[in-house]
Amino acid sequence: MLFRLGALANQQSLPVRIDPSFSRSYRQVSIPRQANCLPGKICPDGMGNSTLAGKQPRQSTNRMTDSRTFRIGVLGSGKGSNFVALAEAIRAGTVPAQVAVVLSDVEAAGILERARERSIPARYIAPGKFRTKLDDESEAAFVSALREAQVDLVMLAGFMRIIKSGLLNAFPNRVINIHPSLLPSFPGLEAWKQALDHGVKVTGCTVHFVDAGVDSGPIIGQQTVPVLDPDTPESLHQRIHAAEHELYPACIAALARGTIEVRGRRVVRRS
Amino acid sequence: MLFRLGALANQQSLPVRIDPSFSRSYRQVSIPRQANCLPGKICPDGMGNSTLAGKQPRQSTNRMTDSRTFRIGVLGSGKGSNFVALAEAIRAGTVPAQVAVVLSDVEAAGILERARERSIPARYIAPGKFRTKLDDESEAAFVSALREAQVDLVMLAGFMRIIKSGLLNAFPNRVINIHPSLLPSFPGLEAWKQALDHGVKVTGCTVHFVDAGVDSGPIIGQQTVPVLDPDTPESLHQRIHAAEHELYPACIAALARGTIEVRGRRVVRRS
Repeated sequence: MLFRLGALANQQSLPVRIDPSFSRSYRQVSIPRQANCLPGKICPDGMGNSTLAGKQPRQSTNRMTDSRTFRIGVLGSGKGSNFVALAEAIRAGTVPAQVAVVLSDVEAAGILERARERSIPARYIAPGKFRTKLDDESEAAFVSALREAQVDLVMLAGFMRIIKSGLLNAFPNRVINIHPSLLPSFPGLEAWKQALDHGVKVTGCTVHFVDAGVDSGPIIGQQTVPVLDPDTPESLHQRIHAAEHELYPACIAALARGTIEVRGRRVVRRS
Repeated sequence: MLFRLGALANQQSLPVRIDPSFSRSYRQVSIPRQANCLPGKICPDGMGNSTLAGKQPRQSTNRMTDSRTFRIGVLGSGKGSNFVALAEAIRAGTVPAQVAVVLSDVEAAGILERARERSIPARYIAPGKFRTKLDDESEAAFVSALREAQVDLVMLAGFMRIIKSGLLNAFPNRVINIHPSLLPSFPGLEAWKQALDHGVKVTGCTVHFVDAGVDSGPIIGQQTVPVLDPDTPESLHQRIHAAEHELYPACIAALARGTIEVRGRRVVRRS
């Protein structure tokens, strides 16, 4: 299976500051702006592939389409530190995008407050009757809010509900998440604690597309974090969090800029 | 479960050259010389722990014990590139140890020739009737040869047979292996191909104690290797191999020098 997610234009990669305490080894990848496709719509490119950008390269003369900023919808249930890291990176000019909307399934979630402080539209949407997933009505409300905000990408930032096919099908290959381990090691909960208990010397974080499995979608970027002898689950988690705040904006910047292909499970620059 | 594998003396760590193309994040650990214990014998330290060094610190007045070089037995089935890397590191003076014997289950294995070129005792031992493991008689012959050579550590270097309890019990917590991935990701065969197929952005190699499971023992050191877009299984395997040739001698140097504790699954410096 090959999804073509990009156009050839504008393959420039983002220079990323690398903290010397971490070893970074993600490939910089990119995804085009939404261009003339509606969010979630797959535009056949006439070559047997599916493309999210249609045939509209970035240097198109269609300025209205062309000048549109890459729009991100953020879903979170907690403090929203990854959202804040993204917002700061956007403000600093290192991520050519805007957060169009922040949605939460938790009415008192700090992420909503952090968004409102920044004058970013923020909404609580009741999750419905289940504990670990959205019910159908709630999922439809999330999809509707993301569509209204015309998002090009859905960023999960500490969203504590399982994402089901309704949302995934509405934004195919456009929902991304960050996981606090070097996947496929330690999927699931408390990955930092799993890593510590297993005795690995290096762990990290992984930005990946979300699919129907648990932390199993194609990997966009990974950043390593050393495990130190005196580490506690808390100290290791904190160090991974710091890496997340670098990796996630860097991956989103690359996605907002450029061009990638997902070939089977591999996310690579379009050749 | 706590095994104490070292004494407090001589905790100095080895300065290791780090190739800038790799990110290194293993903890330097160490294991004492055999001292006055017979190989394979666990000497209770009177504190409810087991120690491989007894109570004989390195600065002991027992010069005969003290001046004995840390002795390594190497088991390999192939070309022996990891053995060669170790032999070169020993010759260069970066690993305070000697290879006491090289054993192979393959009569024509290059590793035997590489050993003989270096005037290191090298023996072929027939593996017996099974394809993937040693039969009991063969295993006993391996154990006997390693004991005769008075080895402090058994290093697996491309040894293509499953190590069973007979050998593990003869050298408890003294058999180590290197695996071409960041365990616990991608145990088993062709780990580099598994990593490439999965689409990870970073893989590497892991030096670990061997236990009864598959690539599951406590981890001594890990080194990361980036996965590049144009990688083939061969190019990635080659890059991991180069990392192995750094990590394995560096871990063995640290083992030969110093002090570690295995606490449950964690291998840490003795506090």
